[in-house]
Amino acid sequence: MRITDLVVHSIAIADPPLRSSYGRHQPYALRTIIELKSDAGLTGIAETHGGDAIAQGFHSLRSQLIGADPYRLAGNFLPMIEADAQSTGFDRSQTYFVPGENPLDAAARLYSALEIAALDLIGKVAGKPVCDLLGGRARDEVPFSAYAFYKHAGGGGEGADAREDCYGEALTPEAIVRQVRQMIAKYGYKEVKLKAGVLEPDVEIETIKQLHAALGHNVPLRLDPNCAWSVETSVRIGKALAKELSHRGYLEDPTVNIEGMGQVRRKLLDDGVETPLASNVAVTSFADIPECVKNDAVQIILCDPHYWGGVQQVQHLGKICRTFGLGLSMHSNSHLGVSLMAMAHAAAATPHLTYACDTHYPWQSEEDEIVAGGRVPIVNGCVKIPAKPGLGVELDFDKLARGRERYANCKFRKRDDEAEMRKYVDPNWRRALPRW
Amino acid sequence: MRITDLVVHSIAIADPPLRSSYGRHQPYALRTIIELKSDAGLTGIAETHGGDAIAQGFHSLRSQLIGADPYRLAGNFLPMIEADAQSTGFDRSQTYFVPGENPLDAAARLYSALEIAALDLIGKVAGKPVCDLLGGRARDEVPFSAYAFYKHAGGGGEGADAREDCYGEALTPEAIVRQVRQMIAKYGYKEVKLKAGVLEPDVEIETIKQLHAALGHNVPLRLDPNCAWSVETSVRIGKALAKELSHRGYLEDPTVNIEGMGQVRRKLLDDGVETPLASNVAVTSFADIPECVKNDAVQIILCDPHYWGGVQQVQHLGKICRTFGLGLSMHSNSHLGVSLMAMAHAAAATPHLTYACDTHYPWQSEEDEIVAGGRVPIVNGCVKIPAKPGLGVELDFDKLARGRERYANCKFRKRDDEAEMRKYVDPNWRRALPRW
Repeated sequence: MRITDLVVHSIAIADPPLRSSYGRHQPYALRTIIELKSDAGLTGIAETHGGDAIAQGFHSLRSQLIGADPYRLAGNFLPMIEADAQSTGFDRSQTYFVPGENPLDAAARLYSALEIAALDLIGKVAGKPVCDLLGGRARDEVPFSAYAFYKHAGGGGEGADAREDCYGEALTPEAIVRQVRQMIAKYGYKEVKLKAGVLEPDVEIETIKQLHAALGHNVPLRLDPNCAWSVETSVRIGKALAKELSHRGYLEDPTVNIEGMGQVRRKLLDDGVETPLASNVAVTSFADIPECVKNDAVQIILCDPHYWGGVQQVQHLGKICRTFGLGLSMHSNSHLGVSLMAMAHAAAATPHLTYACDTHYPWQSEEDEIVAGGRVPIVNGCVKIPAKPGLGVELDFDKLARGRERYANCKFRKRDDEAEMRKYVDPNWRRALPRW
Repeated sequence: MRITDLVVHSIAIADPPLRSSYGRHQPYALRTIIELKSDAGLTGIAETHGGDAIAQGFHSLRSQLIGADPYRLAGNFLPMIEADAQSTGFDRSQTYFVPGENPLDAAARLYSALEIAALDLIGKVAGKPVCDLLGGRARDEVPFSAYAFYKHAGGGGEGADAREDCYGEALTPEAIVRQVRQMIAKYGYKEVKLKAGVLEPDVEIETIKQLHAALGHNVPLRLDPNCAWSVETSVRIGKALAKELSHRGYLEDPTVNIEGMGQVRRKLLDDGVETPLASNVAVTSFADIPECVKNDAVQIILCDPHYWGGVQQVQHLGKICRTFGLGLSMHSNSHLGVSLMAMAHAAAATPHLTYACDTHYPWQSEEDEIVAGGRVPIVNGCVKIPAKPGLGVELDFDKLARGRERYANCKFRKRDDEAEMRKYVDPNWRRALPRW
């Protein structure tokens, strides 16, 4: 079997005005769908982040792909997978780049989508789900976490395409509790994540306290301010929420870089607070891990099959975490069902997944889904691995064409949450770290 | 596709009286060949160490295997793969067990052979070589190292089955140089390993010096006394051979355990000797790695697809070594062509292989080979991945029957190099560490 073509679809999907320390989501999230066609008459698909830069990246690889054996991509594209492993831990991170815009993982991001599409293709040829192609699944159902955001009203889109969502504005603790209750009612989540670093720390503390009171101690809570806090503020919040985060909860990237995370960890332990620290900002690649282990800076790494080099690299990361006594969770961005299935297969094929995965999926809508048959079900908080080959989903080409049209018509060509803040919230807004 | 049967063949093969710090090889090496049969009409094969214990282990897994999907073995047998990762680093090692007799890796050893047989089977069904089933090969040819041993005369076997080999006795530096020259002439090796810890340290130093003089500085040399030396002796020898081991050479397991290895490393560095230390004795499992990294005790880990849990675990180990700046080489035992091919495929599928692999293959003979068509060629020191599905080799059932017959007739049921020393060399011989 040989690859005969790579087709790249840049699409735009409505995205609600979610807030984070990076700023505010644009009204459209950009995604890229690729099709890897083969002379076996079958096509592998994958989804990744969007914009012109990554589309151009795929086009530049086209000539290397055509004629290649999909079973041998890792060997053929090794320099892309391992490009990031050469630099040292301190000058690289997602601290100052939104995910998908970090130049240091550009090669791994491109390869990730190609690997996932190749696995989908191989799975279709072999009649096997992707999670069984690399050793065999460790689980049949993959747990995901509710992902609550402070947000402005609206469901994304612009002009005639603007829409409402079922969640509305959420800029208070009470509104977040309502939002989470809606999500749990709809999807059955058993764990809850709050994107923090948006409002005053005391309001965010109060939000977690209200969630804890509302959901009970058995629902693990995690919060993620994306580095918005100083070491001191991180420690203060960690202490204030020691009880609320003590049942399989975690504090994710409270402050910048591995050194800062290590300081927060040591100060918390000194004060008897054992809440683990998680990261997908201080730690974004294998190159960051040795320093992270040495400093006990991070106790849980958030993998992402879109950024770490694909499913097999996530499996490697899982083994590293197990070997070094670290936990493993999964990061997400605004995405559709193809990404959700790739995340589910990667998680199913990675034994040492110790927390439910993140997903932005509740923030996207049926009307934008490009998966044939509609949205992938999340039931009891889990995505079930379907008894279908490959990723288990196919493209709806009409919906895909609609996504392409919106991409052509919208003005966004990369993610820029800061610009969006200046436009809608504060004309002088800059991302300042630490903000508190 | 479902597994329909597991057939276990315990065989004995002639093995020359090779010496190491464990003692002396028995006249027969015991091996196990397994066949994993499927309802697809195809059979996957694997080879591992021998004796009654592992054969019994396979039989005890038979009911779990029959009806299983070969694509899903890793998920199904996860407790076997990860059994070893729970204990701490210090109470486990091959220090006092010959490889294959360490109870702490018993589960991983059984799983390893099952995984390799399943990959052979999957490869045959998919029409793909094993090294392309888990991401795709990083190389088409796998380099192996010459493996010189001090030895007594003879080629193994007993009674009417006793034989000579082309190498004869080698208990002096000159004889080892001759032995290595023979091996290089026959197989084209570009790197050379000497099993040490057998003769007085000064004789072994002289052996390496003579090899260095005979082969030139561009042939990397490694020596492996399997822990026979004290920290002080290790440092003395490391210093004496600083020049000879400086071109991509290494000192393997000079002394016992991670703590001892760390002491040797620090003392050598203090004296300006940068020769890296390698290990497959102090470090035998993932559980050993954190302590090893923390102490900078080992700079090169020797993987083994037979002991570390199969090909995928070797890939994980490779990624760990790359991530933490360690080198990767490969361990071997007396083996036939099925093992050699599994080692070659594992090495081909592991990008971060930084040294030629070990192999005992020169010590076995055409007449004992159970691979159809005869011995696997080693040309220019390399095994070429064949353009055939699976491992690329099939069984010769007549030869296999002969191996089974010799197993039935010989008295050995496990490897015991100490007993052999007492029988032939010194009735009071005990393995004493350190000996020097």
